[in-house]
Amino acid sequence: VIAIDWGTTSFRAYRLDAAGKIVETRTSANGILAVKDFPGVLQQEVGDWKEKPVVMSGMVGSRQGWQEAAYVECPAGFEEISQKLLQVQSGVWIVPGLICRGDVPDVMRGEETQILGAGVTDGQVCLPGTHSKWVQVKGGKVVRFSTHMTGEVFAVMKQHSILGRMMEGRGDSFLEGVARSGDEGGLLHHFFGVRTRALMGECADPSSYLSGIVIGHELRAAGVGAVKLLGSPELTRLYEKAAAALGIETELLDPQAGVRALFELGRSLA
Amino acid sequence: VIAIDWGTTSFRAYRLDAAGKIVETRTSANGILAVKDFPGVLQQEVGDWKEKPVVMSGMVGSRQGWQEAAYVECPAGFEEISQKLLQVQSGVWIVPGLICRGDVPDVMRGEETQILGAGVTDGQVCLPGTHSKWVQVKGGKVVRFSTHMTGEVFAVMKQHSILGRMMEGRGDSFLEGVARSGDEGGLLHHFFGVRTRALMGECADPSSYLSGIVIGHELRAAGVGAVKLLGSPELTRLYEKAAAALGIETELLDPQAGVRALFELGRSLA
Repeated sequence: VIAIDWGTTSFRAYRLDAAGKIVETRTSANGILAVKDFPGVLQQEVGDWKEKPVVMSGMVGSRQGWQEAAYVECPAGFEEISQKLLQVQSGVWIVPGLICRGDVPDVMRGEETQILGAGVTDGQVCLPGTHSKWVQVKGGKVVRFSTHMTGEVFAVMKQHSILGRMMEGRGDSFLEGVARSGDEGGLLHHFFGVRTRALMGECADPSSYLSGIVIGHELRAAGVGAVKLLGSPELTRLYEKAAAALGIETELLDPQAGVRALFELGRSLA
Repeated sequence: VIAIDWGTTSFRAYRLDAAGKIVETRTSANGILAVKDFPGVLQQEVGDWKEKPVVMSGMVGSRQGWQEAAYVECPAGFEEISQKLLQVQSGVWIVPGLICRGDVPDVMRGEETQILGAGVTDGQVCLPGTHSKWVQVKGGKVVRFSTHMTGEVFAVMKQHSILGRMMEGRGDSFLEGVARSGDEGGLLHHFFGVRTRALMGECADPSSYLSGIVIGHELRAAGVGAVKLLGSPELTRLYEKAAAALGIETELLDPQAGVRALFELGRSLA
């Protein structure tokens, strides 16, 4: 099986042997935003690998990707997802994303694969990032989830708001931000406090303070009870730290788990 | 008296007769960010006006302005502010801003003048804008206030986040956003709902929906009881609409009130 995580800004391919062991890995900046000819880029990236099938997850299955793979409705687990794999050319398949209906729908593409691979049967999983996902799993199925734009809000406020002028700092004010997120006034007010504390010289490191504020807001709004964290070590370390400060129990899942799920999905096609 | 509202991006001057009546108004784009030689620009803008004194409020008194006028501590009213007017040249004065101490300090420059001029003796005033101010007034003094970065967050999310790609719309989804702001999940989650509703074709006008979400969050976090609105007609109209939906009583104050306060402050110098 060739497993591919094809996201917005990056392309990651894994060549797996018959036992599911990764024997080779390739990474490039050919995310979907940089690609027009998807079959061509796939050929160029891994055309010399002969394993079959090729199973891809992530934004490659979005409207801006190779071909749109219709969202699978929650609750959904391995079975529901494997039945809806979308073949885009001979031996090449896309894993569909999930949709969670409610007053306002929520969607994911790629995270469903990571959760499947992590082997979570019950509990709450958080996949932190640009668009953090909070996912409720029951009996091996994703029953519902919600997305928080934490990473993106942090980035745009830092780069494009007035707060960006005061991001120089030394030290770490992350936990002060996490504590602040519980004060009255709400997030829109807490943002302004980054400015005033920096103006008054009362904040050692405004950037980490801002990070603590947004992650603190996310955890308080989303987290009920224990949470399993699935993501890059840099991010999960921050979430662990914030969760500990808030008395939320955490457990780390293997961030490479998605590859395992792609392998299993590939085998289900045989 | 010559009254000047000298802000970040604009300069507004009013020539007042002895009775406090506006006899001439001038406006330019010479906000403090565009100015280096403050005495020179003042001379250029209103050097032909002979009234005295010149009383200025707004960001002209900030560190980036003509000269920093130290913040006056709350509680503060006409007396406390008039005692701390800063003379920057013969007959030319700057009105100091206010600071409200707490775990995290909050500051204003310019809004104190508007509130004084509006003649509010007791109650809650909201001055909506890039950085909305919520101000508690007792016995004619500002006793405390808090700032919400509502306008700026709306602008950066619209211009610089992924939501910006889906801002085309027809109609008005503002009140749907106000209602959404009361749902569980918090602001970081509600932002993502703008994307999903637009993706699914479920939102007639994503931009006004986003506006309703942030203003709704501001009102819910800041507003307790009735509120007096002081701002431009475009903004106060939105806040009135949101407040009505949330059952919050509103009253409109005169947005030109600041000029009256500058006149009174000028007379107190005589």
